[in-house]
Amino acid sequence: MARLSNLMLLLLLVWVVSAFTLLPISRGISVRTAGKWPYDHHDQSERTNAEKTALQQQMADKIDRLPGQPPVGFDQYSGYVTVDAFAGRALFYWLVEAWTDAPNKPLVLWLNGGPGCSSIAYGAAEELGPFLIDPDASTLYLNSYSWNSEANLLFLESPAGVGFSYTNTSSDLNNTGDASTAIDASRFLINWFERFPQYKNRPFYIAGESYAGHYVPQLAHVLHNHPVTKKHSLSHINLKGILLGNAELDNYADSAGQIDYWYHHAMISYETYLGIKKHCKWNHEYYTDDCYNLLGYAQAYEIGNIDLYSLYTPKCLNGSNSRVISRHKRRLKGNEFVNQIPNQLEEPAYDPCSENYAEVYFNRPDVQKALHANTTGISYRWTACSSTLFALWQDTPDSVLWILKELIAAKLRVWVYSGDADGVVPVQGTRYSLNSLNLTIKSPWFPWYMPNQQVGGRSVEYEGLTFVTIRGAGHEVPLLHRGPSLVLFRSFLSGQSVPRQKRT
Amino acid sequence: MARLSNLMLLLLLVWVVSAFTLLPISRGISVRTAGKWPYDHHDQSERTNAEKTALQQQMADKIDRLPGQPPVGFDQYSGYVTVDAFAGRALFYWLVEAWTDAPNKPLVLWLNGGPGCSSIAYGAAEELGPFLIDPDASTLYLNSYSWNSEANLLFLESPAGVGFSYTNTSSDLNNTGDASTAIDASRFLINWFERFPQYKNRPFYIAGESYAGHYVPQLAHVLHNHPVTKKHSLSHINLKGILLGNAELDNYADSAGQIDYWYHHAMISYETYLGIKKHCKWNHEYYTDDCYNLLGYAQAYEIGNIDLYSLYTPKCLNGSNSRVISRHKRRLKGNEFVNQIPNQLEEPAYDPCSENYAEVYFNRPDVQKALHANTTGISYRWTACSSTLFALWQDTPDSVLWILKELIAAKLRVWVYSGDADGVVPVQGTRYSLNSLNLTIKSPWFPWYMPNQQVGGRSVEYEGLTFVTIRGAGHEVPLLHRGPSLVLFRSFLSGQSVPRQKRT
Repeated sequence: MARLSNLMLLLLLVWVVSAFTLLPISRGISVRTAGKWPYDHHDQSERTNAEKTALQQQMADKIDRLPGQPPVGFDQYSGYVTVDAFAGRALFYWLVEAWTDAPNKPLVLWLNGGPGCSSIAYGAAEELGPFLIDPDASTLYLNSYSWNSEANLLFLESPAGVGFSYTNTSSDLNNTGDASTAIDASRFLINWFERFPQYKNRPFYIAGESYAGHYVPQLAHVLHNHPVTKKHSLSHINLKGILLGNAELDNYADSAGQIDYWYHHAMISYETYLGIKKHCKWNHEYYTDDCYNLLGYAQAYEIGNIDLYSLYTPKCLNGSNSRVISRHKRRLKGNEFVNQIPNQLEEPAYDPCSENYAEVYFNRPDVQKALHANTTGISYRWTACSSTLFALWQDTPDSVLWILKELIAAKLRVWVYSGDADGVVPVQGTRYSLNSLNLTIKSPWFPWYMPNQQVGGRSVEYEGLTFVTIRGAGHEVPLLHRGPSLVLFRSFLSGQSVPRQKRT
Repeated sequence: MARLSNLMLLLLLVWVVSAFTLLPISRGISVRTAGKWPYDHHDQSERTNAEKTALQQQMADKIDRLPGQPPVGFDQYSGYVTVDAFAGRALFYWLVEAWTDAPNKPLVLWLNGGPGCSSIAYGAAEELGPFLIDPDASTLYLNSYSWNSEANLLFLESPAGVGFSYTNTSSDLNNTGDASTAIDASRFLINWFERFPQYKNRPFYIAGESYAGHYVPQLAHVLHNHPVTKKHSLSHINLKGILLGNAELDNYADSAGQIDYWYHHAMISYETYLGIKKHCKWNHEYYTDDCYNLLGYAQAYEIGNIDLYSLYTPKCLNGSNSRVISRHKRRLKGNEFVNQIPNQLEEPAYDPCSENYAEVYFNRPDVQKALHANTTGISYRWTACSSTLFALWQDTPDSVLWILKELIAAKLRVWVYSGDADGVVPVQGTRYSLNSLNLTIKSPWFPWYMPNQQVGGRSVEYEGLTFVTIRGAGHEVPLLHRGPSLVLFRSFLSGQSVPRQKRT
């Protein structure tokens, strides 16, 4: 860990020296898209005009009603925020305000991972958003466990090249990596808060899952560390904490944990497990052919054609799951919805094909029009994940644990959760990561309970970091275990432990 | 393993010397209930009379119709078979013949574990039998995945003191253990085949789960090894193989596997795991207070109030689960049933409280009368498990792996399966047991598939032993994953591998 600490010191020094320039957050990789803060060019009169324009844009972004959407009592906005006018780079967002009392509820930015996957395809339309897409891909039904019962939700398609977010400088796509993603996301936030001044100084959290285990801490790092924070445009961003789900945090820990997890979940043979332990060093410089071959063998011949993101649920095999259609047809009306929050005991049936419906729905012209999306006529279809970005991804540090340490030291709220039936970023890898932080245990490992007295998972609270597991949930926790995910989200926002039950 | 081999040789020697006396099958523990084979007392004319009486008894055992039972086309028999006339010990059985073509289907004896638990409460009424009990505990509905689509099923409440099986010598209950259980079960079989001569020479298998991991091999050992087998009463018992599910096979392997499994399934903390690894030697002679305390702490404070037998399903909390009643009300008629076998895609909803319904149903006087049960007026209620037997259980060897080796060497079919979401006899313990047998791998670890192309689990085939996992199933596999359990059972009976799918 000494190496990380030295690097942190070095980085801090460079921050101070370079003052107004955004810096790389991934160690040793130079920033390709560095620039000045947008507001450094404006004088006071320009700023006033900019504010007027921004407010007009906010009203223009207001969503009337999405095709197939049931009536609701909260407001939604969506549209583009330019992050680099010269390059023509703009990011697409969707703001879903809280079901009730929005002005007094916090703002939560949600990011999905990939890299290259859309927070709208996954987070908004499948996991924690208020509307879920019917298998017919033309009607929406209410998600009784939407996180907008607790907060205003800001879904961002990040970086450019993901979903509706675009760049007019196609070479941008060849140069995207962690550093530029964090910088563009911070530029997005600065501009977005200008468009939505009512959210300035609002308690603000950044949440995400999977490869957003990189995005979220990196963005928090940029927001937290930039030396202009206190006097410039970031000063109104009231960042209170981060929430990371089944998050990639450290290549070594995640990889070692994944193999241990696979073996102990009876997914691979003992012989293959021993071979992988012997030949894989989990370091890009030392990956051997034997390691690659064994990993390939395990996946091709041992694990089988399962949904590796959710080990015990059926896999979507034919693109739609007719079995669940009838259950999904039980759409709820708005008024019923309010009464049903919180804590229905029965979650809707899980549909393993749900992620396919988004690819149909969000390519409908009427949906794009209602969302103020694709206004520039992007030359490709909207997809849940960009294979181009994934394939061309540049800088990706081996570990972001040093940023977690930094955020903990800065007294931000840092929560990490893990659906314990995920074979891609398994709970065991996350545990290895957290163990390596050597934090002091404040509340030792304990089970937590849902209102119906079923065990939701377990938790351990360290000084400065809370870890929560969700029993039986796969990678996309809010999709797979909606009720427990909402209990978790409430606990996070309140800063309280997940609910304990006294033993009787 | 040398110690085991020597013991086996010693045992074989003693068998030969003592000829007609049943011997202990658990090493070093003397038999308390030894006696002579029942037929050694009879001359030919007595035997003929006995046969007549037996056939009359078979007809008396025929079940007309159980209270609340839907109509079916197969026959059922139930009643008592005396295993020790002097002590007044009799075992209760329930024979469910195959749905179709019963005379050409094999006979399978099913045993549940405990020790002290009823094969009727679990196997017959909850897992693999043709009738399941409604939450109202008064009506039965058809199990579309009953194993009697493939075989004639003989459920035995074993030993005396379990369920309806009784002894008039109450001290028997203080002296019950593995050895006497196997001996009584073999006596039961000898007498039962006299009552049901149509089953003599029928392909015969013994199956069971949990602590029946002891019963099944031990009974097979008695049947297979007794020197009178070839010329006496056992000669018509055509034992072809055994099938063991989530079976206790070896204390060391099961215990070590359980702790590894708990930790890697995010049930216990790293600290507790390390402590248990350090302080528990998994040997009765070396259990330390620290070990006991850590195990107690893990269960009391870390794992939480889950169903340890099925990690990812809800626990039965209030004795009944009203949510599932409406689904269970969909009872099927007999004719529909035939058409629906095989392989419905949708299994009935899992009801975590189902084991409670048997305790009501089987205590109903009309049910007992229809079953020819409790004819002697037992002074206690029928219960799914006998806590008395469990508490007073005598001999229980640390390992039965040496018997598996013996049965493999004798070319019996030996299959072991494991629902991989069981926290009590976890798949990891079974893998450690099988690894320790050092068998030659014939077909390396591979995934197997259900007809709907979902992965049912994985399998590895050794020379002489097949191991199959059932993905996501807990301890009671046929209850928790009915479809996959039936596919497994068919494969076992056919002696073919569980279904592979060619990779496309």
